Amino acid sequence: MKFGVLGTGMVGRTIGTKLVSLGHEVRMGARTATNEKARDWAREHAPKATFGSFGDAAAFGETIFNCTNGANSIEALRSAGDRLANKIVIDVANPLDFSKGMPPTLTIVNDDSLGERIQKTFPRAKVVKALNTINCAVMVDPQKVAGGEHDVFVAGNDGAAKEQVTELLRTFGWKNVVDAGDIGASRGLEAYLLLWVRLMGALKTPSFNVHVVR
Amino acid sequence: MKFGVLGTGMVGRTIGTKLVSLGHEVRMGARTATNEKARDWAREHAPKATFGSFGDAAAFGETIFNCTNGANSIEALRSAGDRLANKIVIDVANPLDFSKGMPPTLTIVNDDSLGERIQKTFPRAKVVKALNTINCAVMVDPQKVAGGEHDVFVAGNDGAAKEQVTELLRTFGWKNVVDAGDIGASRGLEAYLLLWVRLMGALKTPSFNVHVVR
Repeated sequence: MKFGVLGTGMVGRTIGTKLVSLGHEVRMGARTATNEKARDWAREHAPKATFGSFGDAAAFGETIFNCTNGANSIEALRSAGDRLANKIVIDVANPLDFSKGMPPTLTIVNDDSLGERIQKTFPRAKVVKALNTINCAVMVDPQKVAGGEHDVFVAGNDGAAKEQVTELLRTFGWKNVVDAGDIGASRGLEAYLLLWVRLMGALKTPSFNVHVVR
Repeated sequence: MKFGVLGTGMVGRTIGTKLVSLGHEVRMGARTATNEKARDWAREHAPKATFGSFGDAAAFGETIFNCTNGANSIEALRSAGDRLANKIVIDVANPLDFSKGMPPTLTIVNDDSLGERIQKTFPRAKVVKALNTINCAVMVDPQKVAGGEHDVFVAGNDGAAKEQVTELLRTFGWKNVVDAGDIGASRGLEAYLLLWVRLMGALKTPSFNVHVVR
């Protein structure tokens, strides 16, 4: 499949590399079409990997990963514009605010979420919130933690889109994909970050996750 | 031991009953000293169970459980006043706002928490946030879920107080008590409720929990 990965940070590069390793073609998008991190990453993973602007990556991908900084996600996706229509947008971002130091707070929380804002701003996109609750090394290698016996969540309004994302996550190695409901569940998945950062501090590692049990 | 349980709702009655069943003496406190729910509960569990005002319960208990509605917790604890000094206050409450319907939002979130506000308002109390992340039936019977292989969190500034609460939780049946850090971790533990309510909806049961794995 063809993927557009928006964002050149650790999360975008980690997910882009995983997708290439699974045989997919990936175009990484940045604010400018000449971003050095995107260029270096694409060179390292050629020929399956290419790079360009946010709009180039969104046009290229059949499915789009939003791996931009949560504070800039809406703006980044706006520059991809109409090219998101009818495509699955997997929103991995968190609206974290580090401006007051550690631990971060959230810029959107409680009665709204980034996932919902993206869906509202791009009503023709099929937004699926996923993977935002885990460190990026674990996102693409769930076996790293407890033999993979832990959970990733998906939330979104389009059931078929969630099923496709679930299948993709299974190819990443995820055994347990929990459907948390419609895109409104992003409120819970993003607010969980406030617990995640505390647990990271208490456990002294970002390499952990939660397993939901009944 | 002697416990004061503030609050006559399902959570207060469930925890009070568990404490009595473990052989403790429990005084349940309410806004008025003649609350019918407190009186009925105390009669049912006499002679270990008694009832009175919030102040009566706080004076009686060596350790205090705050099981009041999160929106009213500070006011309820204020009426217990100086009687909280040097005592452990186990804060089980969540600052949930149901005024806009389901799912609820939080009245305190992101850069503050109920746990922190209680500690700040009663600096001589030893506040330990605990048990607020689980349905009350599971709080007192963790074996109900996945053979008890899941976690309860404690957060607070006083290490010895957290150890005492941890020991108490073990007598409730908890195998895994995770120290989430100082009382500031209440931000994470309370914000998690926004995820909890979504998972309850998705799983169609309040009888679940999370297990943190590394």
